[in-house]
Amino acid sequence: MLEYVTDPGDPRLSDYTRLRDVELRKSLEAERGLFLAEGEKVIRRAVGAGYPIRSVLTTRRWLTSLQDVLGDATVYVVSDEIMSGIAGFQVHRGALASMERLPLPSVETLLKGLKGGPRRLLVLEDLVDHSNVGAIFRSAAALGVDAVVLSPRCADPLYRRAVKVSMGAVFSIPYARMDDWFRGLEQLREAGFRTLALTPDQSATPLEAAARSERVALLLGAEGDGLSSHWLEEADEAVCIPMSASAMAAGVDSLNVVAAAAIACHGLMRPAAP
Amino acid sequence: MLEYVTDPGDPRLSDYTRLRDVELRKSLEAERGLFLAEGEKVIRRAVGAGYPIRSVLTTRRWLTSLQDVLGDATVYVVSDEIMSGIAGFQVHRGALASMERLPLPSVETLLKGLKGGPRRLLVLEDLVDHSNVGAIFRSAAALGVDAVVLSPRCADPLYRRAVKVSMGAVFSIPYARMDDWFRGLEQLREAGFRTLALTPDQSATPLEAAARSERVALLLGAEGDGLSSHWLEEADEAVCIPMSASAMAAGVDSLNVVAAAAIACHGLMRPAAP
Repeated sequence: MLEYVTDPGDPRLSDYTRLRDVELRKSLEAERGLFLAEGEKVIRRAVGAGYPIRSVLTTRRWLTSLQDVLGDATVYVVSDEIMSGIAGFQVHRGALASMERLPLPSVETLLKGLKGGPRRLLVLEDLVDHSNVGAIFRSAAALGVDAVVLSPRCADPLYRRAVKVSMGAVFSIPYARMDDWFRGLEQLREAGFRTLALTPDQSATPLEAAARSERVALLLGAEGDGLSSHWLEEADEAVCIPMSASAMAAGVDSLNVVAAAAIACHGLMRPAAP
Repeated sequence: MLEYVTDPGDPRLSDYTRLRDVELRKSLEAERGLFLAEGEKVIRRAVGAGYPIRSVLTTRRWLTSLQDVLGDATVYVVSDEIMSGIAGFQVHRGALASMERLPLPSVETLLKGLKGGPRRLLVLEDLVDHSNVGAIFRSAAALGVDAVVLSPRCADPLYRRAVKVSMGAVFSIPYARMDDWFRGLEQLREAGFRTLALTPDQSATPLEAAARSERVALLLGAEGDGLSSHWLEEADEAVCIPMSASAMAAGVDSLNVVAAAAIACHGLMRPAAP
């Protein structure tokens, strides 16, 4: 159903308001239970993953590219000027969709869904940067991680920037959010996962030597600060990515979290089933 | 030498003008042969790597933190308002330094400097994003890559954003820029390097199986497009990072370039010398 909108202040567009205002968007999206998908490819993946469309905002030029997936969704058509005025940036591939969030499973339900055999979990503690969360989901999905568990305060994978950077990988990998940070690792261990805390500390066990258990949960800490001391202590084992001695001497003593996560996911990858 | 500046338009501050205007900064920095280092840690690393200071811009609050490395450099002291007005953003750790560029070695000189034994080169073709270039230098340095070679059009590692994201790793790893993109790989081969083209194509040789040569140059392509077909054809071998079959089926068919570079650098790491 097409609706042409010519006033940028039109209340029908309120799902799309002030897209670069992170704080406002966080509360608005939580209140209304929505998230935004940007660009044809990402919108297709969100629809494919079963998220219902609330509405789509696009310009005349991009109207046809999505026609086959829109069903009877409401499509607001605006001019290029209104589009970039509302978004505050060039909209990637000309379309934004407001999608309904689905209820997240509890960690318990998520873990029960991972039947026996070798399994790989990534656990993110308090990451603040949405781009990093998106990039880590993209690596995790590409490299065969089975599921992601978030600490209570970790940044939202369905925030627009995370969705975009993940290229929609946030829709293809199951995830859940812990209720209880303090006892979070206990729950993972009870489900049979060996918890490995990734640290830059080069005296820890090299990642690949530790990753041979059947069920592994790799813990990744926040940008800058790394894992909390509570999780470092609670984990079954501290593991590190071996770094070059000359780099350490020159003061290049850590990797950024996206790089570390990629190497870790790659190192955790289980051999292909026979 | 301290100079207090109260007028944001003062010509003494012209090295620091319009920091977020990428195009202007590119030409200004090239013309004057300068680059900017941001924050105490990065400025220290630049000075430590032998780059001369042209001047430093800071506020009263941060003045003491750098005193020991500044020597007789000119230090412009401004108010917090002028600082963020000039920069257009919150300056990380309160100081910016305008540094003199040093002449880059030719690729020939760079390669001659890498004596015998196992060596690892990273070759970046036409990356456009300065954050990605910075993050890749950080991974390369931490994981023991010996040097980086840039294609003629690859983004500048000394651009402020690249320097910052690299956390100064751009100062600790030697690099050079090719003059000739078309014949660039020839020169690497003549220096004894086996050129490996990294591609998402899963029919290529898995990276780790190909990385056993003594001297390896790993080629990384631009965001989105990947390597040019010319380099893909010219390379000795195409290599890939094995991805999860279920992810490929779900359309998550590649890694971002920072994640891919990190895995590749890690996979190339030679065993520690005995």
